[in-house]
Amino acid sequence: MTTQLIYAQNKKITAEMELVAKDEGLAPEFVRQMVADGTVVIPANNGRSFHPVGIGQNMRTKTNANLGTSADELSPDEEILKLKAAVEAGADAIMDLSTGGDIPAIRREIIKNAAVPVGTVPMYQTACENMVQEKRLEDISAEDFFSVIEQHGREGVDFITVHCGVTREVIKRVENEGRLLDIVSRGGALLSKWMKYGGQENPLYEQYDRLLEIAREFDMTLSLGDGLRPGCLADATDRAQVQETIILGELAERARKAGVQVMIEGPGHMPLDQIEANIILMKRLTHNTPFYVLGPLVTDIAPGYDHITAAIGGAIAARAGADFLCVVTPAEHLRLPTVDDIRQGVIAARIAAHSADICKGVKGAMDRDNKMARARKTFDWDTQIKTSIYPPHAAEVRASSKPDDDSVCTMCSSLCAYKHGSVA
Amino acid sequence: MTTQLIYAQNKKITAEMELVAKDEGLAPEFVRQMVADGTVVIPANNGRSFHPVGIGQNMRTKTNANLGTSADELSPDEEILKLKAAVEAGADAIMDLSTGGDIPAIRREIIKNAAVPVGTVPMYQTACENMVQEKRLEDISAEDFFSVIEQHGREGVDFITVHCGVTREVIKRVENEGRLLDIVSRGGALLSKWMKYGGQENPLYEQYDRLLEIAREFDMTLSLGDGLRPGCLADATDRAQVQETIILGELAERARKAGVQVMIEGPGHMPLDQIEANIILMKRLTHNTPFYVLGPLVTDIAPGYDHITAAIGGAIAARAGADFLCVVTPAEHLRLPTVDDIRQGVIAARIAAHSADICKGVKGAMDRDNKMARARKTFDWDTQIKTSIYPPHAAEVRASSKPDDDSVCTMCSSLCAYKHGSVA
Repeated sequence: MTTQLIYAQNKKITAEMELVAKDEGLAPEFVRQMVADGTVVIPANNGRSFHPVGIGQNMRTKTNANLGTSADELSPDEEILKLKAAVEAGADAIMDLSTGGDIPAIRREIIKNAAVPVGTVPMYQTACENMVQEKRLEDISAEDFFSVIEQHGREGVDFITVHCGVTREVIKRVENEGRLLDIVSRGGALLSKWMKYGGQENPLYEQYDRLLEIAREFDMTLSLGDGLRPGCLADATDRAQVQETIILGELAERARKAGVQVMIEGPGHMPLDQIEANIILMKRLTHNTPFYVLGPLVTDIAPGYDHITAAIGGAIAARAGADFLCVVTPAEHLRLPTVDDIRQGVIAARIAAHSADICKGVKGAMDRDNKMARARKTFDWDTQIKTSIYPPHAAEVRASSKPDDDSVCTMCSSLCAYKHGSVA
Repeated sequence: MTTQLIYAQNKKITAEMELVAKDEGLAPEFVRQMVADGTVVIPANNGRSFHPVGIGQNMRTKTNANLGTSADELSPDEEILKLKAAVEAGADAIMDLSTGGDIPAIRREIIKNAAVPVGTVPMYQTACENMVQEKRLEDISAEDFFSVIEQHGREGVDFITVHCGVTREVIKRVENEGRLLDIVSRGGALLSKWMKYGGQENPLYEQYDRLLEIAREFDMTLSLGDGLRPGCLADATDRAQVQETIILGELAERARKAGVQVMIEGPGHMPLDQIEANIILMKRLTHNTPFYVLGPLVTDIAPGYDHITAAIGGAIAARAGADFLCVVTPAEHLRLPTVDDIRQGVIAARIAAHSADICKGVKGAMDRDNKMARARKTFDWDTQIKTSIYPPHAAEVRASSKPDDDSVCTMCSSLCAYKHGSVA
């Protein structure tokens, strides 16, 4: 057993690289080179078999949907429905972030049902299991963190978020900064609290080589979490955030040297005029490690519509170089997402990703838009529906309001500009 | 009777300027100067009385919702409901674009019920009335265009879209360009077809001084329409579009010299990496005339979700300097919008506008985000709901999923990062 990265470094083109090359319309050798350089990852646990995706430079921008129970909403069946809805709506990957019920059982069920890469945040399970057992957070041992991570690898998880950059040095910088919202990453918050109790360094940082060994054994891609991401616009791009990124960049280098695939996670909440600078900084500080972004949400005041705030930020981020967009649903900041929330979130994220791919020059991206334009010109409604980002919804809206002349729609009826605007 | 612009040029601060200054937190004299320079307009027909808004430089970015019947969907009552929903959701202005039923009667009803500026596209009525009467498009006379425009002014319309820049020269450039979708503005398409029949120049261009006289009489702000706006990404930023903008810039100067308030309209469909360049170009070519933008939609493939494609483009455009965002609803390209479509569209446009206002440094914009951040930190749900972009929806989502501990939400339950992430 070895990793995609080690194969690539040894000039071996794997079946996974072949599939990624085919999906992206690129040469397999080109994909191999990028995997070897670490500018592309192919998250695929070596104990699982499924159709993998490439994430990184020159790839189509990918999207990930977060699923999973909470202590308040813990129906495993519902999470399987969310998984299916996410994949049906076009998500390229999912993360099981369950924090309620029998977490390992739910995860196994999700992995069994997922035809896409599956990620997790092992820290959640560590925290929940101990809290459920009436142990206090400070009773968790460093051993507990690693044993859960190994369990996830053994069960087939393809990528894990690990908050290795939440070091004492970084936390000190948060204290000095005077943030409005301090730490808003769940993993980062719990870890920093644990570190504070014991006066200890972050074990995922201190024993990083041990983490790398586990990751390498299963070819589990590390997604180095941004525990210090800003949780509101006012906290964006501060010294704590940038300090963590510097450390994550160093850890990414060490991962690649150890043959472990690695991504970097990024913010968060951010005024839209800071996004491009952030992506440039992230990419440079991490030597073009594939960049996985949550949002950025470009305003704090839109609970109920954060799929839209994230689509605005995500489109700008992806255009500037972000490779992987984490879906934000309309439920963000209000409740655990429902099945429909997940669907709406995935579609919004895919719109952002595709809009950016047109600018990135991703192969075939613009062709689809041109196909839609031609279908509009020729009143070819079948093609318009089929070419749309989510055909079932476009078809439903179209069917809800029937024009007299079915070549047009009820917006303009006979005044349809496509009918009158031809200069030929 | 005179215009806000003429008053401003004569150093007179009107009641309307006072109100705008108060709403924006600016000095009345500063507002007067901007109105005098033409970098701000206050669309307010001098025969109507209502609370006006300022549109342009240093102002909060405003949003406009399009309402109005079509030949297929022509319930006047429904349009009044749409008007109310648009204003309740926070639209700063509305346009009645009715093209079905008794157009003048619907308009009068909308003006009567509107507490915000009302715009129209008189050309639609001209075309519809003639088509309904079984006259052909080519039977319309130049006289018909002007008499309808005068009727709109007399009835209290605050701003009108007039496609004065659709000249023979510009149409020639569309022909030479080889667009996928030629002309997609309804007004632009009908006008160019009419010009082709008669081999005539555009009367709104040729007799522009006559248009200015009517506009001045009622202080009806001219919104110089972009008849040549791109209707798909492939057609964006072409020679035809830029040629029209050059002409609109010249016409805007002439309007200001005649004491007529004027805005410029802009695209359309556009890859997101062209938006900033377009806004810079538009602003420069028109000497900072207030800029009113439709979209831009950053991909063609999202029918059913074009409020999101427009929010992405609108946020980028507004940040780059666009002053007035035209709402695009989820119904775009599929049907006449419903009441809920209008609501969703207005909210998405307001998110875009507000996200940009934070970057523009608009007074108080960021304060609201900080208030939300503080309310999150203190689990103050009342303030979170009240501070949100559309409180009724945030309240509904929050109420739909009740946590055990009502200080948190069901997303994270007891793992809520605000509970654990404090570094104080």
